[in-house]
Amino acid sequence: MEKQRPLILVSNDDGVISKGISELIKFLRPLGEIVVVAPDAPRSGTACAMTVNEPIHYALVRREVGLAVYKCSGTPVDCVKLAMHAILERRPDLVVAGINHGDNSAVNVHYSGTMGVVIEGCLKGIPSIGFSLCDHGADADFTPAGPYVREIARQVLEKGLPPLTCLNVNFPVTVNLKGVRICEQAKGQWVREWENFAHRGDSHYYWLTGEFEPTDTENEQSDYWALAHDYVAVTPTTVDVTARSLIGDLQGWFAAPLPPL
Amino acid sequence: MEKQRPLILVSNDDGVISKGISELIKFLRPLGEIVVVAPDAPRSGTACAMTVNEPIHYALVRREVGLAVYKCSGTPVDCVKLAMHAILERRPDLVVAGINHGDNSAVNVHYSGTMGVVIEGCLKGIPSIGFSLCDHGADADFTPAGPYVREIARQVLEKGLPPLTCLNVNFPVTVNLKGVRICEQAKGQWVREWENFAHRGDSHYYWLTGEFEPTDTENEQSDYWALAHDYVAVTPTTVDVTARSLIGDLQGWFAAPLPPL
Repeated sequence: MEKQRPLILVSNDDGVISKGISELIKFLRPLGEIVVVAPDAPRSGTACAMTVNEPIHYALVRREVGLAVYKCSGTPVDCVKLAMHAILERRPDLVVAGINHGDNSAVNVHYSGTMGVVIEGCLKGIPSIGFSLCDHGADADFTPAGPYVREIARQVLEKGLPPLTCLNVNFPVTVNLKGVRICEQAKGQWVREWENFAHRGDSHYYWLTGEFEPTDTENEQSDYWALAHDYVAVTPTTVDVTARSLIGDLQGWFAAPLPPL
Repeated sequence: MEKQRPLILVSNDDGVISKGISELIKFLRPLGEIVVVAPDAPRSGTACAMTVNEPIHYALVRREVGLAVYKCSGTPVDCVKLAMHAILERRPDLVVAGINHGDNSAVNVHYSGTMGVVIEGCLKGIPSIGFSLCDHGADADFTPAGPYVREIARQVLEKGLPPLTCLNVNFPVTVNLKGVRICEQAKGQWVREWENFAHRGDSHYYWLTGEFEPTDTENEQSDYWALAHDYVAVTPTTVDVTARSLIGDLQGWFAAPLPPL
């Protein structure tokens, strides 16, 4: 019996018609059967949000040999959940998100809908990878990322990933990528995050904006450093967020009986 | 000069008029000045989502000595970001979310808007705690949680938390709480997650539903176990999601030059 080709589930948060997902599909096609289930419109910054207060809907966009593309009215996480439940005919061998138009390194992992896809795939026990390019432009150039995307996906298909871990891969904007660096999540925070404006005399309206301010710029292990130095930043990421180092200390806090309210 | 009372920023994902946040405010008031900035309607399951494609708005709901309440049209994370940027007159000493109507233990930490508040507070460098009760009912009884909420918040105000760590506290539904257990995040996944229905002849509509299936039910360290045995589950949580154990292995993957695309 012929061995089935690997099944790769693809999604993103920029929406099914974004350039980044088209480029991703192109890079991944030689590796297996591709099923795309992606949001029908942009869902940037949706993290692991799910749609709990209304129904969602999906529909086939197009199908050809080795590729089926569906759009979905839900969030990136909804797309993965619904694909697994209702669309895919077998369990995928790999979940891939992206290629995101914009940086998902450092603390952005927490806000990213791209990484929402990846975290959901990982929670379902499937090796999962998110790819992002540090360029928000609708017509960003994903070409230099191509060989890396294919090779990283190929290796994960071949070797798998340990339970509860996934990959967050970010590309700097350069045609001269220096290679891969395995990184840790850079420390820092977003600052100057809101632009205020008034509407009909009410001045309490704000648009989200801001800049990321790293606090460990000299840390050569961080994804921020790797991207600043033209490396592909591969940050292994866990979905077990227990802060084990804190368990012992906290146990001492509650040794005494509680005071009454 | 009189020492200022601690400033506590409170938010949630069930919305500013939920019972859980009213109860939380009541429990916390003896500990300091309270400013509430909470969603103007339910935002359950929004994780760390931010509002990036439209402006958000906030407005004062009420103010009395030691308490100001604002509603905000954004997500839980937006509430924290906007409070820090535009509403609070000084940096808060503590960020508290909840009390959520529903369980945020185990993998739910990734989907929870309650924990979105907490993760955002933590990323801003402020000691942050999320409180949740395993009861979705609008009129759930938060009374037994009261002494624990106050004591845990008091201890965190007094001792702080290490950088990049926060607390995810979940209460079982019982009037006979057996005490606090310091836990790790239970393993498992959501299953049977969608209810299918047809609308105008199109059968591709789905409502999110489902059940959590733990895979480590015998693990007495897990928050799942603690809740099943009537303990208050305190799960220390990190916002540094680097899977450090994987770094060495991955470095070996990319030693050879990449094949061309």
